[in-house]
Amino acid sequence: MKRTAGIAGLAGAALLLATTPARAEVSAETAFVFNTFSFLVSGFLVMWMAAGFAMLESGLVRTKNTATICLKNIALYSIAGIMYYVIGYNLMYTDVGSYIGSFSFLYNTTTAEAELVSAGGDATAEQLALVLDNSTYSVMSDWFFQMVFVATAASIVSGTLAERIKFWPFMIFVVVLTGILYPIQGSWTWGGGWLTEMGFSDFAGSTIVHSVGGWAALVGAVILGPRKGKYGADGSVHPMPGANLPLATLGTFVLWLGWFGFNGGSQLALGSAADAAAIAIVYVNTNLAACAGVVAAIILTQIIYKKIDLTMALNGAIAGLVSITAGPDVQNHLMALFVGAVGGALVVFAIPLLDKLKVDDVVGAVSAHLVAGVWGTIAVALSADSFFSQLTTQLVGIVAIGAFMVVTSAIVWFALKTTIGLRVDEEEEEMGLDKAELGMEAYPEFGHGSQSL
Amino acid sequence: MKRTAGIAGLAGAALLLATTPARAEVSAETAFVFNTFSFLVSGFLVMWMAAGFAMLESGLVRTKNTATICLKNIALYSIAGIMYYVIGYNLMYTDVGSYIGSFSFLYNTTTAEAELVSAGGDATAEQLALVLDNSTYSVMSDWFFQMVFVATAASIVSGTLAERIKFWPFMIFVVVLTGILYPIQGSWTWGGGWLTEMGFSDFAGSTIVHSVGGWAALVGAVILGPRKGKYGADGSVHPMPGANLPLATLGTFVLWLGWFGFNGGSQLALGSAADAAAIAIVYVNTNLAACAGVVAAIILTQIIYKKIDLTMALNGAIAGLVSITAGPDVQNHLMALFVGAVGGALVVFAIPLLDKLKVDDVVGAVSAHLVAGVWGTIAVALSADSFFSQLTTQLVGIVAIGAFMVVTSAIVWFALKTTIGLRVDEEEEEMGLDKAELGMEAYPEFGHGSQSL
Amino acid sequence: MKRTAGIAGLAGAALLLATTPARAEVSAETAFVFNTFSFLVSGFLVMWMAAGFAMLESGLVRTKNTATICLKNIALYSIAGIMYYVIGYNLMYTDVGSYIGSFSFLYNTTTAEAELVSAGGDATAEQLALVLDNSTYSVMSDWFFQMVFVATAASIVSGTLAERIKFWPFMIFVVVLTGILYPIQGSWTWGGGWLTEMGFSDFAGSTIVHSVGGWAALVGAVILGPRKGKYGADGSVHPMPGANLPLATLGTFVLWLGWFGFNGGSQLALGSAADAAAIAIVYVNTNLAACAGVVAAIILTQIIYKKIDLTMALNGAIAGLVSITAGPDVQNHLMALFVGAVGGALVVFAIPLLDKLKVDDVVGAVSAHLVAGVWGTIAVALSADSFFSQLTTQLVGIVAIGAFMVVTSAIVWFALKTTIGLRVDEEEEEMGLDKAELGMEAYPEFGHGSQSL
Repeated sequence: MKRTAGIAGLAGAALLLATTPARAEVSAETAFVFNTFSFLVSGFLVMWMAAGFAMLESGLVRTKNTATICLKNIALYSIAGIMYYVIGYNLMYTDVGSYIGSFSFLYNTTTAEAELVSAGGDATAEQLALVLDNSTYSVMSDWFFQMVFVATAASIVSGTLAERIKFWPFMIFVVVLTGILYPIQGSWTWGGGWLTEMGFSDFAGSTIVHSVGGWAALVGAVILGPRKGKYGADGSVHPMPGANLPLATLGTFVLWLGWFGFNGGSQLALGSAADAAAIAIVYVNTNLAACAGVVAAIILTQIIYKKIDLTMALNGAIAGLVSITAGPDVQNHLMALFVGAVGGALVVFAIPLLDKLKVDDVVGAVSAHLVAGVWGTIAVALSADSFFSQLTTQLVGIVAIGAFMVVTSAIVWFALKTTIGLRVDEEEEEMGLDKAELGMEAYPEFGHGSQSL
Repeated sequence: MKRTAGIAGLAGAALLLATTPARAEVSAETAFVFNTFSFLVSGFLVMWMAAGFAMLESGLVRTKNTATICLKNIALYSIAGIMYYVIGYNLMYTDVGSYIGSFSFLYNTTTAEAELVSAGGDATAEQLALVLDNSTYSVMSDWFFQMVFVATAASIVSGTLAERIKFWPFMIFVVVLTGILYPIQGSWTWGGGWLTEMGFSDFAGSTIVHSVGGWAALVGAVILGPRKGKYGADGSVHPMPGANLPLATLGTFVLWLGWFGFNGGSQLALGSAADAAAIAIVYVNTNLAACAGVVAAIILTQIIYKKIDLTMALNGAIAGLVSITAGPDVQNHLMALFVGAVGGALVVFAIPLLDKLKVDDVVGAVSAHLVAGVWGTIAVALSADSFFSQLTTQLVGIVAIGAFMVVTSAIVWFALKTTIGLRVDEEEEEMGLDKAELGMEAYPEFGHGSQSL
Repeated sequence: MKRTAGIAGLAGAALLLATTPARAEVSAETAFVFNTFSFLVSGFLVMWMAAGFAMLESGLVRTKNTATICLKNIALYSIAGIMYYVIGYNLMYTDVGSYIGSFSFLYNTTTAEAELVSAGGDATAEQLALVLDNSTYSVMSDWFFQMVFVATAASIVSGTLAERIKFWPFMIFVVVLTGILYPIQGSWTWGGGWLTEMGFSDFAGSTIVHSVGGWAALVGAVILGPRKGKYGADGSVHPMPGANLPLATLGTFVLWLGWFGFNGGSQLALGSAADAAAIAIVYVNTNLAACAGVVAAIILTQIIYKKIDLTMALNGAIAGLVSITAGPDVQNHLMALFVGAVGGALVVFAIPLLDKLKVDDVVGAVSAHLVAGVWGTIAVALSADSFFSQLTTQLVGIVAIGAFMVVTSAIVWFALKTTIGLRVDEEEEEMGLDKAELGMEAYPEFGHGSQSL
């Protein structure tokens, strides 16, 4: 549904004022502060997810590509922040028709808010009313919250394509993804476009954020090809284990923490008891789904492989989180456990399947974000009033956004491939991107063990 | 005391409404939002402590057991979250008599809250009143906050028993600990049971959380026995240094940060000036105690060993934090410094003492959580109106909870030992649990230095 | 300007009450809770920056000095917390004349607040009014927020002087810096002293925190001299690359996250729509400046060196953040991009320049905190009503604080050098501080690679 102010929106506030006894009233200004603060707190949690992706990916690549993946992660977050300010937010949220918002540059605070802030303690009642009549939250707090979401979508791509993509082409893709592609499809639902009109429901972005990043990554992986030596001519898969698993574990915990902001903040309001209670339910469902994803992945790997794979457990957590993201406002906690468990199970099968298809996804991001994202979006129908009707709508959204992302990102990846080139040459890949592109080592003093390649 | 809504509880709110001028009023709905948000923010900080324990333990074990300890930490947090939902919370907080709550499954939001959330902007004044009349916070926000506490108790155990316990028996212990043992003893105080009636005071859980984890760990360590080669027949102690001290440092900082949620959130309310001011005092005391713990440990190790031990400094911080946890609402900041300093000093003596007793605690958790937890619980009496009376009550609580945990966890550990076995075999221990149980390496590319075992 | 309660101060609250319709009112008690909670949330984010510095520095030193830098970071945070409680806060904020506050020991909550907290739910309207009439926030929440700032200033110093300074002399410097030097110069502006009277503007401390740390570090680096072998007699610079770049990346992300508290919390209030909107603008500007710093550093290093340096990108982020810190309340977001980009560019030139001057700054802190801090403080004039008048005032502040810090820290560094000595001996430096001073290794099992020194 349209991603504007939640329950405590103007209508809600007015209603409360008209009908509730004074003891229960949240004043409009108090609600404004709550809503704004929720965006800021949730936003900094989601910003923190950028660090989570950086650590997860640093832990899962080999040492010779570690500094490069660190650089890509901080650079993509920076580019996302700038592009979403320069053009993305307006494309997604300003004057959205059915399919796209406004092509206008920069996004700034409203005159009313700017004047209220400037006036500070000398503000008049009229200045305050001008702000409160137009919005239930500070517009820049909303911008901040939406911006960290686009950065998440970009973070998903870097992991899949690690260890062989060139730095600058990747960054150009990020410019297009965060400035144009993500915002356009985002406008369809959260901007109030055609998918919202149709009833498509994606609370915090299983499809709109996670599958979008996943599609861009998948298309990129196919076009880029696998790492040299990953797949033998005889169909064998050569494992290239991550160099630093505690960092990958840390990254997963960071993502888990950040997800409370990702899902909780997507209530888009905190200024009423109803909103606060809704956010609490979202937190609980988010946590339960992640727990179930971990447990499902652990039990399945134990049964199938007779060993428990830490990396699978981490991806199980992420898949559980992605799965619940489309519908954490569903109130049934048992359903959250189920949705997360299925997400965790899917990842255990999707990762080897992709390898069988010779799609080389270095960190498992396509499985955790795209596969689980599709599942989570479908699962929303399980709690809908009309299962089949909602399911149809959900599938339309999944397919429409998927088709858009596959086509547009294929165009961009091919354009980059045929112009400046996407991939480092074989010698550079062998040497590692850290030496080839950065001229440095991530761990210059640590000797090279038996697995070193 | 009973762990229900704090100062801004219904009685308090009603009082304010009746007696204060309008300008100072916090409406009941505003207080509900504040209280709920405090649980959520404090809760995500405590959730983050799970990452802190994971990093601390990853840094303090040897490389050959690092991936396993990462797996255990994310798995135990997941199991704690599920078990506390399925059975734990009700045992601890629902219909508690003197010794135990309700044996009923699942914990869900109230009908009133669910209807308010569903209604959203269309909610009636009656729907809102129904919620506000029954609770001063969202019930699921409280669940979330209490859930992360039980995860903390479980995290304490994994560090002590690292490097030799089998994965699945450990997980079964976690199931029992988080679903049954922790909730039962927790009901005695925070559920309003017999220890609350007696006047036992443990603000945020020096005893109820930290010593409980510590007792379970200590009993486990005794039953499991020390790591092979740790103690010589001649009484010598063979050091097995942690493989990654920056990670251990990071983990300690994460714990420190999370502790503001742990202690600050335990005020259980934010919806009045009194609650806000109380939380601020708790933050300051928490920080001062940790600072004093670090400084005490550094100075003592310098004096005793002529070298400063980083690991001791880290455990000094944790011990300071554990020590203040029983009474951070004590308003005297000098006392907080004293309590923390004693905690930091205790750990410097307790760690070698345990080694002398051939109790092999890999990360020092028994010293930091159990010893300091007992001290902190006793120290509450220092600020009580009647020192000896409070001291007696505190000792009753410490001993009762200790005895319960020693007996029950011994039963569970022994049951596991005599059935599926607790410990990996010698060859697996030598090889490391990562290869033996997971079939992977935490740092496959880093060569093996002189200390490698 | 004076760092006391912001827009929602008493005057503002009174004004709102007098002139605004009831629906827009934030009650004084609600504002008190908001303001206090903003200090606590922002404060824990800034506390987290201590972990960021620890990781950044751990990643940028060599393995043989890693445990020591971890120890220094947790120890300096602890000492800062104690010293600011014992003496620093009063020097900075209590009864400040023009140049210094009160030399009095300890800082405690007010009697009114203590009584309100003790009374809890039984508090009378008079007890509440007594608190609200005197302050718009809990005094200890303000203390907590200011304390974490002084810790930041101290953190800056440890990185620059790493790998050769002795532990205890460094700690004594931290005692003086956090207890006396920082508070005295801080009183000039934030305590309401002569610089505030003059109109000096430093919103969150580009000069007051970051350049202060930077000056202390620079003077220390000059007095201490470079690391052995860093500079050849022929003017060559011997690179000594950091041992763990993912940790340095993590540290930078932590700092970035913490900066939202650093700058956002410096609004010093959240209790009105104006304050909330102001904080949102601060968050956005903080993020945009950091993004621009990263992008500027990456593009410049690509152009100049034909390679992108990860360390430069990280320092570019920090420099962008430091640069915007003096004026993130400036509402023009494009200006934030510009200010951050210049900061990021400056660091690319300042780091090699310092090397040319044979000033050995291990982590680049002088460039990122002092150079960018001066730039950011100057840049405030760009948004002032009168550019030249404001510029003059800004320069007076920069020079006065710089002169004070250079003279006083030189005295302290020299006093330490001529008494107990500042530097480890050559053999210890060669061996590494971890073995020499701590008797331990940070990574005992990781073999030593080609770059090992």
